[in-house]
Formats: sequence, C-alpha cells, structure tokens
Amino acid sequence: MPELRKDPVTGRWVIIASDRAKRPKSFIISKAPKQTGPCPFCPGNEGMTPEEISAIRPAGGAPNSTEWSMRVVPNKYPALRIEGGLDRKGEGMFDKMNGIGAHEVIIESPDHDKSIADLDENQVADIIKAYKYRTHDLERDARFRYVLIFRNHGPSAGASLDHAHSQIIALPIVPKRVQEEIRGAKQYFEYKERCVFCDMMSEELAAGKRVVLENDEFVVISPFAARFPFETWLLPKKHSSDFAQMPDESVGKCASALKDVLSRTKQVLDDPPYNFIVHTAPVHEHHENEYHWHIEIMPRLTHVAGFEWGSGFYINPTPPEEAAEFLRTITS
Amino acid sequence: MPELRKDPVTGRWVIIASDRAKRPKSFIISKAPKQTGPCPFCPGNEGMTPEEISAIRPAGGAPNSTEWSMRVVPNKYPALRIEGGLDRKGEGMFDKMNGIGAHEVIIESPDHDKSIADLDENQVADIIKAYKYRTHDLERDARFRYVLIFRNHGPSAGASLDHAHSQIIALPIVPKRVQEEIRGAKQYFEYKERCVFCDMMSEELAAGKRVVLENDEFVVISPFAARFPFETWLLPKKHSSDFAQMPDESVGKCASALKDVLSRTKQVLDDPPYNFIVHTAPVHEHHENEYHWHIEIMPRLTHVAGFEWGSGFYINPTPPEEAAEFLRTITS
Repeated sequence: MPELRKDPVTGRWVIIASDRAKRPKSFIISKAPKQTGPCPFCPGNEGMTPEEISAIRPAGGAPNSTEWSMRVVPNKYPALRIEGGLDRKGEGMFDKMNGIGAHEVIIESPDHDKSIADLDENQVADIIKAYKYRTHDLERDARFRYVLIFRNHGPSAGASLDHAHSQIIALPIVPKRVQEEIRGAKQYFEYKERCVFCDMMSEELAAGKRVVLENDEFVVISPFAARFPFETWLLPKKHSSDFAQMPDESVGKCASALKDVLSRTKQVLDDPPYNFIVHTAPVHEHHENEYHWHIEIMPRLTHVAGFEWGSGFYINPTPPEEAAEFLRTITS
Repeated sequence: MPELRKDPVTGRWVIIASDRAKRPKSFIISKAPKQTGPCPFCPGNEGMTPEEISAIRPAGGAPNSTEWSMRVVPNKYPALRIEGGLDRKGEGMFDKMNGIGAHEVIIESPDHDKSIADLDENQVADIIKAYKYRTHDLERDARFRYVLIFRNHGPSAGASLDHAHSQIIALPIVPKRVQEEIRGAKQYFEYKERCVFCDMMSEELAAGKRVVLENDEFVVISPFAARFPFETWLLPKKHSSDFAQMPDESVGKCASALKDVLSRTKQVLDDPPYNFIVHTAPVHEHHENEYHWHIEIMPRLTHVAGFEWGSGFYINPTPPEEAAEFLRTITS
C-alpha cells in the first residue's frame, strides 16, 4: 500500500509509492526506456488495460470492444489505491495516511499519433466532457479532497506511453500549489473584494501584449511572472472557481481555445514536450468568490535546474511578452 | 537589465532574464549542447573568466595567475546585475523591480574532473569556508535579502560547464520555498516552543532507520517525506539558523559529512546528476529560535513530471528508509 506522508516543516504531502520501489541500479539510466511491444492504448489491445470505466462508441458496441473514439480506464500502475480507509495516524512527530486515491487514464483518441493539437474540436470537447464527468463522479467519494487533471506530452515531460492520454488523480489532500493560490487569492479578495484572476485578465485584455488568443468565453495569456519560456494560462472570462461546473454549452469554446494554444505551441516550438494541469477549487470547498479555475500549460524547453524547484525561485529566459507575440502571430 | 516580477496570486518572484532572450528555434533541442573548446575554469585559462574575487594560492602568486587550489569569480553570464537600484514599481496591478543581485561561481579545484565526492576533506573545507566568506561579504549589501548557495552536478541537473563548481546568488527577495519553511517552522515553534528541525533530528537519531551517517556535529538523513529517490538532508546537530555563522572549528566536520554523503551517493547510484542547496535564514531576519539551516541534496534520477512541480505534489518511488539503508551500508 502506498503511503501519504506529510513534511513536518512545510506541510507538503508526498506519495511514497513503495510498491514501485526500485533497486538503486535501476535508476542509473535516467532516461525513460523507449516503449516497445504493442501499444496498450491502441484499438484491438483493449484487453491490455484494466476494464474500462466509460467510453464513447459512436456506432455502439460492448464495453472493452474495439470500436471507440475515447476510453476512460483505471491506470494499470496507479500511484494510489482505491480500496480502504485513510487511517490517518502519527509515527512519532510525523503524520501519515494510507495512499488512498483514484488514478485514471483518458485515452483521447484511437489514433496512436494524434495529440490534442491534431484532433478536431469535437474530439477535444469530448475529452473536456470526460474531465468534467469523471470529476463529478470522483467528488462523490467522501475520502477525496481534490481531483487533479493533467496531461504529460512527450517522454521528457513524464509521459511513459506515446499514445495520447490525460490523467486524473483523486486525492485525499489538496496539492500545495493550489493551497498557495487559494491563500493568495483570498488575501487579494479580502483587500480588494475582487477576484485576482478576473483583475489580471481585464488588465491583460486591455494591454494586449501578453494575450495569445481569445474567444467569447475564454482567453489564453502568457502570465506576467511566467516561470517557464512559453508558459501559458487558459482562463474562462466569466468568473468561476470550479472547472467541473463549466456549463456544457461552454465546452466547445474551451476546446477551441485549448486546441488553438496547443497547436500554436506545437508549431512555434516544433512539437515540444509539455505538461498541462487544470487548477480548480478543492472538492467541497469552493472558494466561489475568490478563486478562478484555469489551465496552466508548461512547455519543457529548458532543463529546470534543481535549485529552481528546490528554492521555488525561477529564472525565465524568455519574457512572456515575446512568447505571446510568437504564439499570437503564427497562423495556426 | 533583467527584471524581477511577482506573481500576483502566489507572491512568487521570478527573474525574467531578457538579456538571455532566445528565439523559439533555439529551444528546439532541449539538451544542453556538449561543452566544446577550452575549459574556462581550468588552470591556464584564467583570462576566460571575469577578474577573480578571491582565490587560494598556497604558494602565493598574483590574482588571476595560474597556481591556485580554488577561485571565486563573477559569473560571466549572470542571471542578475550588480549595478543599480532596486527601483520597485507597479505596472498596473503587477509588481516588479530591477533584476539586481550578485551571481558568483566557486571553482572548487584546478582538476577538471574532480567533484566534491573526490576531493580531500581539506579542499571541501575550503569550499565551505568560501561559501561562508562570500555570504558575509554579500550580506553587507543592504539591497540583498537572501544569499542562495547551490551546486548543479551533471548537465541534466543544469550544470552548463563540466568543471566542478558551486554558485552563489544574492537576491533582493527571499525564495518562496525558504519562506514556506520559515512559516512552517514558526507555526511549530509557536505551538511547541521547540525547533521542528531539532525535534526531527532527535526522532531520526533515536529511530535510526532514515539516518545515513553522523559525526559529532552533523547528521545526514533521508527525510520522512522525501520528494525524490535518495534525497538527503545534512543538518548541524547544534541548533543554528544561519549557515554563515557556522564556527570555523566546525567546518571540518561539515566538510567530512558532505563529502561522505556525496561519495556514498556517487557510489550507490553510479555518479548521478544532483543538485544541492543550502537552506539558511534570510539576511537580517535570522529567525534564530525557530529556523535551522541545512543542506538539501537532490539526485536527479527520475524525470520530474510537470504535474509534480506544477502542483507541488510529488510521487517518490523509493521509501527514504530504503534509500538510507543503501547509502548507510555501502563502504565509502
């Protein structure tokens, strides 16, 4: 059973995934081995994944059969286990609990080589609907406090399989960085009685220089204090703290903006590895007035020096104004 | 002039190093290019570095001459500029200041291929003395609030030159992660009236299972909630918040523990890339009772998935008890 452990100084929780334990020698080659053998996410190999949670089969068909346009399956090598109680306890001064959680994979398309940038907008909308639907379902489990939705593109961004997929992890804790955002957004709200993200968006839209693209409902900016070259954030124009509460009629516009920024990023940077993470309010703690959901997209272009994540202090060689201009002016 | 910019949500400062700006195509190969040409840190090439700040020349000799055992020089491509005022100002709702700071390099040995694990203890002690002496000097500059000492070993850990070196950056801000540690340590102190690091150390020494090594004055543990496989922390047994206040008579013991843990890490993991960072109290804000300086050593064994640094939520596949046992039992 993996364990969740809390750092006694900063309060950060970590998964100690002991089932995945490795001998030291297995670390020596730090590059992920190239995938070999049949792809477990390709049509025809449905038996290589755990039983599916849901799928889209436009022509109908039985669960786990071959004709589908999207599948949601449990992760075969989950970082957390779904069965059991949290069993919070101390070990001397330290705090820990069982590594309880859900870990699911969204296989975005039957096509092995197509990523969100290449799919049509309806397919991207299906992926976003799956994020919403899985979140609603996982939120019903009283053990979970956060549903973390993310996507790793390319092996150096942590993707262990080439076939395009997103991941969802439901957690009994709130990730540190979301806690920090909420704390900061609350402070701002107490002082200004306005949402910091809404204020940021209206400044960005007025100035224009860090805006990558916008439509009626969504905007993509390269943020003022971007940590990474070509980092971008996608935000809904209408204030909302909870991603999963996005109205169904807005999903198309969200899909359009997400596909557009990822296509531009792919074109400008020649299909770079990247990660994106949906930042949303914790389950049952909506922070409705002060928090604002958004998606952070981080291309992995430079080696992040250890001192950067060790200190939380980043050096970004590309001003976000320049990144936004490159992304804005390319014809996607 | 590089700029320091503050994220309006979390308060995190970032260096936007516009002088280093790159065209998108220059990012496409994310691997650092292999160093070519003569090494600027090797004896005989002193003219390739800026004028030295200090050096150790056991046989005497003029500054910037060839016979030396250690040199401290300004970074030729500094992330921050030393000249000018901070000039804090707003840009609409955003906060920024000039990218003022010092960026120095400690060339640890004339030997191109020797790292701290390979040097003799006296040489390591000289490096630690240089950290102390440079910190004292930089602390006199009223613009600086933090002196960040770190070391990148290996290109995938961010080292742009092979020749063994450490770096020192003096900053007009306190890095986010140090702020978080101080906040946590203060909360613990308010509750317990004891230092959280002292408590952690005494628990670890009593339990033994996460202790890697110790001597009279220092201990190295693999922390309870380690983020990374084989992460280790070196701490002084005697409570002290400020690294640079380490008595000269303790430097030898510190050097011995640091060399020992790095040698063991090198042996167990076949010379892995790693980073270490000295965590110490901010300049002029000593937090004497509640904070405790230490060195965090982070081998770069796994690709840190973007969702990990994007969420602050880490998955560590190696329990620290196992890592400590591997490091402890090897004969270094």
